[in-house]
Amino acid sequence: MDFKIQKKLKNSLGRAGILKTPHGEIETPAFVPVGTKASIKALTPEQVADLGAEIILSNTYHLYLQPGDETVAKAGGLHKFMNWQGPIMTDSGGFQVFSLGAAYGKEISKITTATKITDPSLLIPERFDDSDAPRLAKIGQDGVSFKSHLDGSVHYITPEKSIQIQHNLGADIIFAFDECTSPTEDLKYQEEVLERTHKWAERSLIEHKKLSGGCALFGIVQGGRDENLRKKSAKFIGSLEFDGYGIGGSFAKEDMSTAVKWVNEILPEERPRHLLGIGEPEDLFMGIENGVDLFDCVAPTRIARNGSLYTKNGKVNIMNAQYREDFSKIEEDCGCYTCKNFTKAYVAHLFHGKEMLAATLASIHNLYFIVNLVKKIRQSIFEDTFFEFKKEFFKNYFK
Amino acid sequence: MDFKIQKKLKNSLGRAGILKTPHGEIETPAFVPVGTKASIKALTPEQVADLGAEIILSNTYHLYLQPGDETVAKAGGLHKFMNWQGPIMTDSGGFQVFSLGAAYGKEISKITTATKITDPSLLIPERFDDSDAPRLAKIGQDGVSFKSHLDGSVHYITPEKSIQIQHNLGADIIFAFDECTSPTEDLKYQEEVLERTHKWAERSLIEHKKLSGGCALFGIVQGGRDENLRKKSAKFIGSLEFDGYGIGGSFAKEDMSTAVKWVNEILPEERPRHLLGIGEPEDLFMGIENGVDLFDCVAPTRIARNGSLYTKNGKVNIMNAQYREDFSKIEEDCGCYTCKNFTKAYVAHLFHGKEMLAATLASIHNLYFIVNLVKKIRQSIFEDTFFEFKKEFFKNYFK
Repeated sequence: MDFKIQKKLKNSLGRAGILKTPHGEIETPAFVPVGTKASIKALTPEQVADLGAEIILSNTYHLYLQPGDETVAKAGGLHKFMNWQGPIMTDSGGFQVFSLGAAYGKEISKITTATKITDPSLLIPERFDDSDAPRLAKIGQDGVSFKSHLDGSVHYITPEKSIQIQHNLGADIIFAFDECTSPTEDLKYQEEVLERTHKWAERSLIEHKKLSGGCALFGIVQGGRDENLRKKSAKFIGSLEFDGYGIGGSFAKEDMSTAVKWVNEILPEERPRHLLGIGEPEDLFMGIENGVDLFDCVAPTRIARNGSLYTKNGKVNIMNAQYREDFSKIEEDCGCYTCKNFTKAYVAHLFHGKEMLAATLASIHNLYFIVNLVKKIRQSIFEDTFFEFKKEFFKNYFK
Repeated sequence: MDFKIQKKLKNSLGRAGILKTPHGEIETPAFVPVGTKASIKALTPEQVADLGAEIILSNTYHLYLQPGDETVAKAGGLHKFMNWQGPIMTDSGGFQVFSLGAAYGKEISKITTATKITDPSLLIPERFDDSDAPRLAKIGQDGVSFKSHLDGSVHYITPEKSIQIQHNLGADIIFAFDECTSPTEDLKYQEEVLERTHKWAERSLIEHKKLSGGCALFGIVQGGRDENLRKKSAKFIGSLEFDGYGIGGSFAKEDMSTAVKWVNEILPEERPRHLLGIGEPEDLFMGIENGVDLFDCVAPTRIARNGSLYTKNGKVNIMNAQYREDFSKIEEDCGCYTCKNFTKAYVAHLFHGKEMLAATLASIHNLYFIVNLVKKIRQSIFEDTFFEFKKEFFKNYFK
C-alpha cells in the first residue's frame, strides 16, 4: 500500500494525500461509509459510489457470525460478495468486544452520549439501558470469548483468529485486534488493557505476515483520555511495521481533539491514520486539523433513517410539520441524487408513510453531505483556506 | 388517449397494442407496478424504469389521506411529486371502500385466499383476521363515509369527490368510483351494489367532463361471479363514453377466467381493458388470452419483501438454508439488476441480516420477472406463438 502526502496544512498536523490500494485510490482526507453487514443500509453499491464514496468499511464481528467469513471467502471475498468495486476496510471486532464486555450495560457506549460510534446494531440504546445485564464477552490474556447476539452460540476470538477472519473477508485494509479502553475503569486497569492491546497488536502483525494476501494492516492506538497512556500507545504502535494506524477509543467529545493531537504528533507522519467511528461535521474538521486521514461512522445513515438530515445550517428533522408542504429541496445547492430529484415535502411524505424509500433518499443525502464535506475540506487544504472554510462552516452550521 | 390494436391472437380475445398517454406510450399487454403511496416500495423511480416498467399505479385512498391530494396538486401533481416521468394511473378508492366496508374482517379480502389484490397496507392479514371488528366504512346511495386508518378522522367520498381527488393527483389514467361486489352477499344485495356502481360510473363521467385536464377515465365493470350481473355490467359500463375499462371484483381464482371472458366479449374492442389487482403469472396468461391489456398487482413487491422470488421454475424462498452458500444467480439468464450483480447467497444474507437492501434487490427481480413476462407474452402474440409459450412456461413453472 502506498500513501503519498500531497500538501500539508500550515501550523497544524493536517495534510491531504493519496492512498493506493489494490482496489483503487483514495483521496485523503476521506470519509468511509459503514456497511456493517456487507451493505450500506438501504443503498445499492452504485448509489454509494455515485454519492462520491471511494471506500467503505464492514464489520468483522457481524460478518464472522453471519454469513460467516468462510462463506464470504467462498463467494470470492467481500468485493465480489457485495459487488463493491472500490477499496474496503474491515475493523477487527475489537470494538464489539468492548461493547459486549466492559461497556455492556453502561452509558459510555450509547450513541446518544458517546462519541465513539462504530456499530449500529450493537449500539441501539435498548441494548445498553439495562446495567444489570450480564456481559456477553469475557476477556482473557489470549483472546475473547463471547456469545453471539444472534443465536447465543459461544465463540473465541484471538488476535490470530481476527486476522484470519479478516483475510478470509478479503478487504484492502484490515485492523489489528484491540481492546477499547473503557474511560470508566481505573488507571491500573486501563494500563493492563493497553498492555494487552499492544501484545495483541504484535500478534496480529505476526499472523498477518504469515498469511499471504495483498491487504494492508493498520494497528490501533488506544489509551483512553489519559495523556501518558495515549502517548505510550502511539509510540509503541507507531514503532511497529503497520501500514497505517487506527485511533480507537470511547472518549468524551471535549477530550477527542487533545487525544488525537497527542497521538498524531507521535505516529510516523508518512503513514495514513484513521479515526475510528467518528463522523460528525465538527469532528471531521477537528480530526483533519490534527492529522487524521480517514474517518468512518454510522451516524450519517443511522440518523438519516430517523429523518435527521444534515444541511449547512445544521441538522433538520424532516418529520417536522413545517416540511409537509415545503416544495423546496433539502438543500437548494446540494448535488446529491435526492436533492436533484425530490422535495422536502416528498421526503417528509415518505417518512410519514413509513416508506422504505425514505431511508434510501435520506441516507444518500446525509452520506453525500459528509463525504463531500470532507472532499471540500481536502480542497481547502490545497487552497490554503482550511481555517477560513472551517470558520465559515461553523458559523452557519451552529448558528 | 389513443389506443391502437396492432395484432390479435387467433381464436381468442387476446391482442397486443399501443396506448398513448400524455406522459408516453405503453406497449400492451403491460404490467403496472403499484406504488400505493407514490412510491414503489424500496425502489427509486429510476430502478422502476430500468426494470422495464412503462407505467405505475398509485392509490387514491392513501394519497387523499396522506399527504392529501391538494398537497400533491401544489407539488405540481404526482409525476413531479414522486419524480416518475412516465404514465401514472390512480385507482378510485372504490376497492378500499370494499376493504373497509363489506369485506372488513372477512376472509374474502385476504391476500392469502383472495385473488383480488390491490392494496398492500390494508390487506395485511392482521387487519382482516378479527371478524368482529367494526366496519370502518359506511356506504350510502350518494357515497361512502369512512374513518381514516391513520388518525380516525371521518371522511365522506362521493363519485364526484373521487374524481376531483384524482384530478388533483394528476395521473394520466384515472378510474370511476365503484363499489366492489362482495361474493359472500346474496344476489339481491349484489344487484343493488351493481346498480349503485353503475350510477356512480355515470356521475364519475359527468364530473370528469366538468373538470378540465388531459387525463383519461376508465369505468369499472363489477358483478362478482354471477354471469348475468357481469354481462349486465359490461353492457352498461361499455355503453358509456369511458376511455377504457377496469374489470374489478373479488373472485375465486377458478372463476376469474370465465368472468373476464364474459366481460371482454361485450366491452368495446377498440378500448383498453385493465384487470384490477391481478398479477400472478398464470393469471397474466389467462387475462391476456381473454382480452386484457393492463394488469396491476402488489404481489411482486409484497412477496419479494418476504423473500419469495419468481423464477421460471416456480417461486423460491431465498430464506431457505440451501441458498446460504449458493453462489449462483437467482436466475442465470435473468437480465435484472439483481441477477446481473448479486448471488443467491448475498441476497439470502441480506434477508437473514434484515438489511433493507434485501427488499430492494428482491423487488427489482420480481418486478422485472413479471413486467418482462408480460413483454414476452406480448412478443408471442406478434409471433403467433402465444399458446406454445404458455404451455412451455406452465410446464416449467408448475413442475
